Amino acid sequence: MERLFDEELKNLKEKLLRMAALVEESVELSIEGLKGQKEEPALEVLKREEGVNLLDVEIDETCLRLLALRQPMAGDLRFITSAMKIGVELERMGDLAVNIAERTIELLKAPLLKPLIDIPRMAKMSQAMLRDSIRAFIDRDEKLASDVCRRDDEVDSLDDQIFRELLTYMIENPATIRRAVGLLLVGRYLERIADHATNIAEDVIYLVRGKTIKHHIDKIRESAFEDI
Amino acid sequence: MERLFDEELKNLKEKLLRMAALVEESVELSIEGLKGQKEEPALEVLKREEGVNLLDVEIDETCLRLLALRQPMAGDLRFITSAMKIGVELERMGDLAVNIAERTIELLKAPLLKPLIDIPRMAKMSQAMLRDSIRAFIDRDEKLASDVCRRDDEVDSLDDQIFRELLTYMIENPATIRRAVGLLLVGRYLERIADHATNIAEDVIYLVRGKTIKHHIDKIRESAFEDI
Repeated sequence: MERLFDEELKNLKEKLLRMAALVEESVELSIEGLKGQKEEPALEVLKREEGVNLLDVEIDETCLRLLALRQPMAGDLRFITSAMKIGVELERMGDLAVNIAERTIELLKAPLLKPLIDIPRMAKMSQAMLRDSIRAFIDRDEKLASDVCRRDDEVDSLDDQIFRELLTYMIENPATIRRAVGLLLVGRYLERIADHATNIAEDVIYLVRGKTIKHHIDKIRESAFEDI
Repeated sequence: MERLFDEELKNLKEKLLRMAALVEESVELSIEGLKGQKEEPALEVLKREEGVNLLDVEIDETCLRLLALRQPMAGDLRFITSAMKIGVELERMGDLAVNIAERTIELLKAPLLKPLIDIPRMAKMSQAMLRDSIRAFIDRDEKLASDVCRRDDEVDSLDDQIFRELLTYMIENPATIRRAVGLLLVGRYLERIADHATNIAEDVIYLVRGKTIKHHIDKIRESAFEDI
């Protein structure tokens, strides 16, 4: 029983790592297509979507099996329920990579508005956050998780900067509007990928500390009691 | 033990309903502010965010307690893990209502681009999907859940229509770009609220049928086996 549990747990971690690697590659490919003005990498992302979805379901089933098998308490219980939530986050990130790929295919119909610098940079940052958030989960590394949360602000401010720059393009030359809006949406998708990585990192801190930083809950509870 | 479990389960359902009602009101208020060009409802949404977040944490804790307390099998296990995921979905919808409220406060700095018809309609549709998805979960109502999934297509096509209309505004008159982009983002936020409701509805179908429709998994598995 114990050995079966440990094996399933190892299996679960491997699946999470595999899913994270797949999603990270999809983000990479979607931006490679956009930056290099090639359709193939974007089409490859669409083809890979099924594999990501399959892993999501497998992770969910593994977690349910672990919960039923061992009926774990405290630490293990939180680890498994966190893994379930992380599977959902990864699946959403995969969807966002697909959104970028679809937008890329659309954007390839016209020449690029400008050479892309900040969007690929933002993609790299989001990919690293994704990778590190899963690493932090597997290793229960609170420090790495905190670092991921901190980097989310950098991604947000880069997204803001891209947004403002694209607005000026549109205002100066309305012929660029369609393409600028397309790029603006790609920026938003990347920003959301970073948000999902941050959600995972917050879950890790919750897991390690056994309490949530997500909503600064202690503060909230205090003020809730003040109202009574 | 049994009675305590049933009581906690009832408690969990009540919390989900309360959280859903809070989030639905926030969506309503955020759009009321935008449509009526008033700041107060939008500010009210920002004030309510803490209450939503507090419920999210409470739902999570209740679920963990239920898992540890009863060590439930099969049906109950899936119900509780679904509730955990639904708490996350509701919390994200609350965040999106906050995003709309923030965008509203920004948009109030200039006169409305045009009288809003489609955006409030889309908001109503998303709110109804949110309400029905939770109702479907509590009642384990597969038919209502399927109906929510179906309605997501209507919201998507309304969002597309809004998007295209706003693009024409921008192209015709660049002075409208900032406001049009703001409204375009509000449309996207509403579309994402509908997506979250659809995620909940898919979880309900998963729960009732005991298998996932999320990724048409049977189809995927078949094709995965074909590759072997």
